[in-house]
Amino acid sequence: MWKEEDNKLKKTFEFKNFQEAFAFMTRVAFLAEEMQHHPNWSNVYNSVEIALTTHDAGNVVTEKDRKLAKAIDAI
Amino acid sequence: MWKEEDNKLKKTFEFKNFQEAFAFMTRVAFLAEEMQHHPNWSNVYNSVEIALTTHDAGNVVTEKDRKLAKAIDAI
Amino acid sequence: MWKEEDNKLKKTFEFKNFQEAFAFMTRVAFLAEEMQHHPNWSNVYNSVEIALTTHDAGNVVTEKDRKLAKAIDAI
Amino acid sequence: MWKEEDNKLKKTFEFKNFQEAFAFMTRVAFLAEEMQHHPNWSNVYNSVEIALTTHDAGNVVTEKDRKLAKAIDAI
Repeated sequence: MWKEEDNKLKKTFEFKNFQEAFAFMTRVAFLAEEMQHHPNWSNVYNSVEIALTTHDAGNVVTEKDRKLAKAIDAI
Repeated sequence: MWKEEDNKLKKTFEFKNFQEAFAFMTRVAFLAEEMQHHPNWSNVYNSVEIALTTHDAGNVVTEKDRKLAKAIDAI
Repeated sequence: MWKEEDNKLKKTFEFKNFQEAFAFMTRVAFLAEEMQHHPNWSNVYNSVEIALTTHDAGNVVTEKDRKLAKAIDAI
Repeated sequence: MWKEEDNKLKKTFEFKNFQEAFAFMTRVAFLAEEMQHHPNWSNVYNSVEIALTTHDAGNVVTEKDRKLAKAIDAI
């Protein structure tokens, strides 16, 4: 579940290993480029934390973040 | 199904679009590096053709190719 | 140098190893998605062969291919 | 310059845009897999922050971190 916190939409994804985590990141990277809306994200081994916020709107959660969140869940 | 032909183990994979095809290629790239055994492969849009052969054994199909084929199918 | 041949714009790129070749392919993949114009390409270890043609124009070389070729060279 | 801080070896890399940043991350991902030593890292648009520490040694900086740092700089 995505959780709204500190004006960010957040979710953590867990994978079997680093290879799977990074392949997921590649998918997200393509979506982000397509939407021209990029995540704040971090990775350690099999875990990927994503935080979405709209810089241009003053760092609050907007429809752009919800749309990217939905696209990520559809992967 | 992998098909043995011309001393190569071959299979074609179809995806929804280029993004999915390339994400799959990224997974295969990691497996190939891990095994230090690299495919002959080509891509057009949503389609990825893989041909496996063992250069060091004189370009014939060996156990290395079967192992990589199995790992690719497990993606 | 890109070479026009069989209604395709072609070039082969050589790298130090597979990792570098695949990182280059990732760059090209992003450009292709951005332009919504995708290459016919193949890879074996450190070598990447790219062939560009415009399917929608009846598989001939168009301005779209020249633009993608220029963007690839700028990597 | 890598900086040792809080038992981590840290460095921030800046790129022209997201595509270049993510292509760099792909290179680092391959190195990390090759060494079986993975970074703590985060990305926002054109910026990539890497923090290296050795979990198995009790989260301190070891020779493994210095080796990966050197390999990343060689990209």
